[in-house]
Amino acid sequence: MRATVMYAAGDVRIEAVPDPQLVDPTDAIVRVTQACICGSDLWPYAAMERSEDGQSMGHEAIGVVETVGTDVRTIKAGDLVIMPFAFSDGTCAFCHEGLHTACEHVGFFGNNGFNGAQAEALRVPYSDGTLFALPVGRDDALMPSLLTLSDVMGTGHHAAVVAGVGPGKSAAVVGNGAVGLCGVIAAKRLGAEQIIIMGRHEDRIALAKEFGATDVVTERGDEAVEHVRQLTGGVGVHSVLECVGLDESTTTSIQIARPGGAVGRVGVPQSETIPASQPAFFGNVIVGGGPAPVRAYIEELLPDILEGKIEPGKVFDRRIGLDEVPEGYEAMADRESIKVMVKP
Amino acid sequence: MRATVMYAAGDVRIEAVPDPQLVDPTDAIVRVTQACICGSDLWPYAAMERSEDGQSMGHEAIGVVETVGTDVRTIKAGDLVIMPFAFSDGTCAFCHEGLHTACEHVGFFGNNGFNGAQAEALRVPYSDGTLFALPVGRDDALMPSLLTLSDVMGTGHHAAVVAGVGPGKSAAVVGNGAVGLCGVIAAKRLGAEQIIIMGRHEDRIALAKEFGATDVVTERGDEAVEHVRQLTGGVGVHSVLECVGLDESTTTSIQIARPGGAVGRVGVPQSETIPASQPAFFGNVIVGGGPAPVRAYIEELLPDILEGKIEPGKVFDRRIGLDEVPEGYEAMADRESIKVMVKP
Repeated sequence: MRATVMYAAGDVRIEAVPDPQLVDPTDAIVRVTQACICGSDLWPYAAMERSEDGQSMGHEAIGVVETVGTDVRTIKAGDLVIMPFAFSDGTCAFCHEGLHTACEHVGFFGNNGFNGAQAEALRVPYSDGTLFALPVGRDDALMPSLLTLSDVMGTGHHAAVVAGVGPGKSAAVVGNGAVGLCGVIAAKRLGAEQIIIMGRHEDRIALAKEFGATDVVTERGDEAVEHVRQLTGGVGVHSVLECVGLDESTTTSIQIARPGGAVGRVGVPQSETIPASQPAFFGNVIVGGGPAPVRAYIEELLPDILEGKIEPGKVFDRRIGLDEVPEGYEAMADRESIKVMVKP
Repeated sequence: MRATVMYAAGDVRIEAVPDPQLVDPTDAIVRVTQACICGSDLWPYAAMERSEDGQSMGHEAIGVVETVGTDVRTIKAGDLVIMPFAFSDGTCAFCHEGLHTACEHVGFFGNNGFNGAQAEALRVPYSDGTLFALPVGRDDALMPSLLTLSDVMGTGHHAAVVAGVGPGKSAAVVGNGAVGLCGVIAAKRLGAEQIIIMGRHEDRIALAKEFGATDVVTERGDEAVEHVRQLTGGVGVHSVLECVGLDESTTTSIQIARPGGAVGRVGVPQSETIPASQPAFFGNVIVGGGPAPVRAYIEELLPDILEGKIEPGKVFDRRIGLDEVPEGYEAMADRESIKVMVKP
């Protein structure tokens, strides 16, 4: 089959690789109907050192189950499923607590020998725990929004949950990629009264406003902090959704939080330390977050998508075939595209 | 009157200074009956650069109100009061939320021209908001425990609250100074089933056990992390109370937290950054905390002291007069004493 392999920064190729096979009795083989390129794929696309073997890419998909192992109980061939970016057994203490990304058997697609989802098919471990069978057909118009439940919508929601968004509160979203935009949806959905989007890319700002952003801050650094304070009676926001992962964005996130507020980090941190320790401490600002347990959030978010209350699928502004994936990476890296959907 | 002034690391003196005077109409003058030396006083005692004017010291006290300004409504001359380490107006939005250390008018005793509490008397701004009138006489046997409500007991409680301690959960306390020991009391009081004290000082460990610690970890660094994992089924604790403030202790705190757990920082951070960003992120570990709103916690904690349910006053293992304060600093810096009470 064909699959996406990255060999170095900027070097993404579509190659013929062996078809995935059942290995463990809890596995399923899923034929991918929709995948996408993630903002987090852009970190290696910018910085990966050359590798002989390459790195299998992609961790978000909807697909049709082709075959299942002998121990699979609930998932069956023919099911249309959402595949979250991490696999999880669904049975351990952490899965029961809703923190599937800390599952005893957690793993991430495209790593450690598990092939990625920017491919025609892939092997899914712990398929009963990992996959979520959809109650709609594969040609449903909601498919783009449903695809976001594999990562970006669940991740934006996680940032909002960790940041303590609630009715009547103020929120700021740092980062206007697909996760940040989904963070705006999540903040509005959880009742935030004021939602400040931090960014300067016109198309993204327009979409953020459509999703519920009430204010826009285009500045960066100290000027951004000053502007947020102006918008919030001088004190900052209750909840900050950090959707970038760089030191600068994290510093700003801590600085714009109201005393006693919280920062929900979902941008993968690119640094060994969290900046602004003392501002966080003296403001009693909580810094939390991490890989979102998107598997846990599907049940909460799915009804709103099925009822048309939220439309996170609007973050997809380009649709390509598998052979065009290298151009898709380029378009996202150049910020010509917010998020690219791949139909193998 | 006599008061404590620090001129440089290791240079603490008792000097004659002008008597405090009412300045603002919301002020009170309090004659100190009990004060103490705080672990946080040991940071400047270890590192302060020489100052011509010196630094007025002390921020914890019980005392008797001597006079009040014309706008003081609830506090009156003769009241026996607890003085929290920060002053606060009691009326702003943050005070109403219970975050008095973010009060619009917050200030800290011993800073910015406000004299410290290791003195015969001091001026208390916003005295109606700041001071808490006690329902007992000044010779009450509970006085040591009541004095801890001005800082260490409220601070240990804050660490436990931020770290999410609750019934049936596991907690670890990093640091076995007075705050850490009060953190053990707080963790037990909030229902923690397992309380691990991290430390190696025999007397302190014995007191921690008396206060409710169930396990002791004497190792440091990676070995400490390994030991905590052994004690917690391999996963770490739900709640970590960071009561030191150094990078090493904070790193350990993050590393011993269970995925989805929380670290409550109350040790004043000595570094510009929070270490272990990626372990915190990939474990979805929350890092929170800051200056404790001890004023808010007095009402919650006081009944347990009056009823003898908790005895945080046991952290005082030395009682001295004002003239002996320099020796008191030395004893705490040398870890010969856990916490020194000063009776001017």
